Amino acid sequence: MQSVRTLASRTHRAYQAFLKQGSTKLKNGMLFGLAEALAEHKPVLLSENRKDLDQGTRDGLSKALLDRLALSDKTIDGMAKACADIASLPDPVGRITEMVVRPQGFRVGRMRVPIGVIGIIYEARPNVTVEAAALCIKSGNGAILRGGSGAHRSNMALVRLIQDVLKGCGTDENLISAIESTDRSAVDELVVQEGLVHLIIPRGGEGLIRSVVEKSRIPVLKHYKGVCHVYVHEQADLDMAENITVNAKVQRPAVCNAAETLLVDEAVATLFLPRIVLKLQSLGVEIRGCERTRAIFPDNVKPAAEDDWTAEYLDLILAVRVVNGVGEAIDHINRYGSNHTEAVVTADIRVAEQFVREVDSSSVMVNASTRLADGGVYGLGAEIGISTDRLHARGPMGLEELTSYKWVLLGDGHIRE
Amino acid sequence: MQSVRTLASRTHRAYQAFLKQGSTKLKNGMLFGLAEALAEHKPVLLSENRKDLDQGTRDGLSKALLDRLALSDKTIDGMAKACADIASLPDPVGRITEMVVRPQGFRVGRMRVPIGVIGIIYEARPNVTVEAAALCIKSGNGAILRGGSGAHRSNMALVRLIQDVLKGCGTDENLISAIESTDRSAVDELVVQEGLVHLIIPRGGEGLIRSVVEKSRIPVLKHYKGVCHVYVHEQADLDMAENITVNAKVQRPAVCNAAETLLVDEAVATLFLPRIVLKLQSLGVEIRGCERTRAIFPDNVKPAAEDDWTAEYLDLILAVRVVNGVGEAIDHINRYGSNHTEAVVTADIRVAEQFVREVDSSSVMVNASTRLADGGVYGLGAEIGISTDRLHARGPMGLEELTSYKWVLLGDGHIRE
Repeated sequence: MQSVRTLASRTHRAYQAFLKQGSTKLKNGMLFGLAEALAEHKPVLLSENRKDLDQGTRDGLSKALLDRLALSDKTIDGMAKACADIASLPDPVGRITEMVVRPQGFRVGRMRVPIGVIGIIYEARPNVTVEAAALCIKSGNGAILRGGSGAHRSNMALVRLIQDVLKGCGTDENLISAIESTDRSAVDELVVQEGLVHLIIPRGGEGLIRSVVEKSRIPVLKHYKGVCHVYVHEQADLDMAENITVNAKVQRPAVCNAAETLLVDEAVATLFLPRIVLKLQSLGVEIRGCERTRAIFPDNVKPAAEDDWTAEYLDLILAVRVVNGVGEAIDHINRYGSNHTEAVVTADIRVAEQFVREVDSSSVMVNASTRLADGGVYGLGAEIGISTDRLHARGPMGLEELTSYKWVLLGDGHIRE
Repeated sequence: MQSVRTLASRTHRAYQAFLKQGSTKLKNGMLFGLAEALAEHKPVLLSENRKDLDQGTRDGLSKALLDRLALSDKTIDGMAKACADIASLPDPVGRITEMVVRPQGFRVGRMRVPIGVIGIIYEARPNVTVEAAALCIKSGNGAILRGGSGAHRSNMALVRLIQDVLKGCGTDENLISAIESTDRSAVDELVVQEGLVHLIIPRGGEGLIRSVVEKSRIPVLKHYKGVCHVYVHEQADLDMAENITVNAKVQRPAVCNAAETLLVDEAVATLFLPRIVLKLQSLGVEIRGCERTRAIFPDNVKPAAEDDWTAEYLDLILAVRVVNGVGEAIDHINRYGSNHTEAVVTADIRVAEQFVREVDSSSVMVNASTRLADGGVYGLGAEIGISTDRLHARGPMGLEELTSYKWVLLGDGHIRE
């Protein structure tokens, strides 16, 4: 088996060659080719996936994990569609923004360019293999993929398919490569290949991500967790507040943009809490309330401990706190939150403005559900992950976030006076 | 003396308060106030600077270093003008770019926000203290400044002035703070304050920067060195090529965007090299040439060693190499360069396009001098440094590069279907 360093050198060399060769036409051709190849090679993909599933069953994986791992005719069609969708997005590379004429008479602007080689570390779902590869191809980047060991055979079959398509287009297939070793030490080796690898995107549990950040000498874009809040202001339309809260908590509780804490203004607590708590409980949600919440519901609501304010339940559990106005709500969010996504429900424009300005999160929603924090919903077309960091990219990351820029100056003999 | 951690907590708290308080009007008022205060307090600034200069003389600093350290009426006026100039620049914070209406009917866009607390580590020049503080104030960031020990008294006097202005405006003066210890270990402590400090910008020699990068657990934006190239294509206007080469090498050789290597197409080598070499030699430039260059000048040109291709001379020395066309020039630059700034001189638009596309540097010039790579020249107004990294900011960094963004979604009860 080749070392991670050798793999990284090869991918880096393929990336440099692709810089010269990777026209929009070629890249889109590859993506449509990949969509076709996926449809054509379903039997081998399903049979490799079957082996992963059998192994997972023997290893006693939970039903939820097996579900995430499973491929089907339909999920493979979904991957093929994602490739075609990414092909149809505008090419971010080569775009020059705001080229201005300076007083001296030359023009200067910024041209979008690929970032380089991106290491992507992820867990169960094999569809990430295809989507990450497709996004990197379209944005002109090389990629080194490292999927979860439970999906190893499925991922390797997908990478072989991708590399065959690259080769068929006359491109060095190492542009998209995968780490074959399922050993944890291979990840440790990947994150120190500075100079060959330019960005690391880890996706998965907090433990995985913390370990990557701890060891990486390469910039990492990531989010640890999503402790998202819905804040119901006293001027909220309470029907709207109920709809948004239910959607944010219940529609898909296991994802990072689902709400974990509800903050309610004291002025509407006795009006709003009875209806929302009963509604959520009827939908199977367990409520953990602050003392003021429990003063209204002494029996049906468990007490929230300090830990509940920072908990990412990813489950049908909601922490509820009564607050005194928008200032206290913002302070709670900035103290306990994870800088992911927060929503305010209010009819008062000044409260909305203050919430947007002062909440320090990657997405801030006014009168909308936290579940809308998503690259597709925002119009990015497809996302490679979500960042709660402050540099480069924040929130959902799409094609443009997979590019950097360089300054281009067009002169006619201009010199520095 | 307070610990770096205490200092960082105080600056972080001041930054968070400034998020709520820092209107454009207040920020501009501070900057104009600082300009006035600088003009008013020249005597104390000059006398503190005198002590640094005396100490430097006793320590045997070079004349060049003492020159960089020295304040004068004129340099203080320059700092005051920089503050007023930064006040007159548009406020980057709060600007929302491309707010689009999505098919579901809500609007979504990105709002520029401050990055947070920025640690700035720099060497001799005290004017960096004022310019860095002014740029951070205008962009809403907190700053922790750590200047060179040789300028310690000057820097402390400037920081006291800045803090007095902040206090006078009713703002927590810890927004702009300075590390008082001149001990190297204080820098090591600064770069591990993740959570309190969000970005490190080191400016200075390669040794300082490498040591910061090695130890930092916080993102660092930097450039190690500037090994800038001028490439003269066979279709170049040779008068223009001479002008640009002379300007790039001679106008200010000690700065990072001065040229260090000249690449000349073989087809024009016998025509161009005699004139440019004699011209540069008449201006005191030492030429170190490849074998083909020395075949034309066997006597007056020293041989270039492998090390010369990666050397940042910062002096009147130029490495010269004859190449076979644009492909070889690009390969040389991407192999030996420092990703800073490169120029091509050509009349062939396809060569210019190829050079712009394939050269992997933060600034690429067509028919213009490398010396034009500068925030002021590009229209950024003022720059806090230059980045040759790939993430977040590349090339000169101005106010906008000192901001991040968050997604803002304005709905009317919108939920995820």
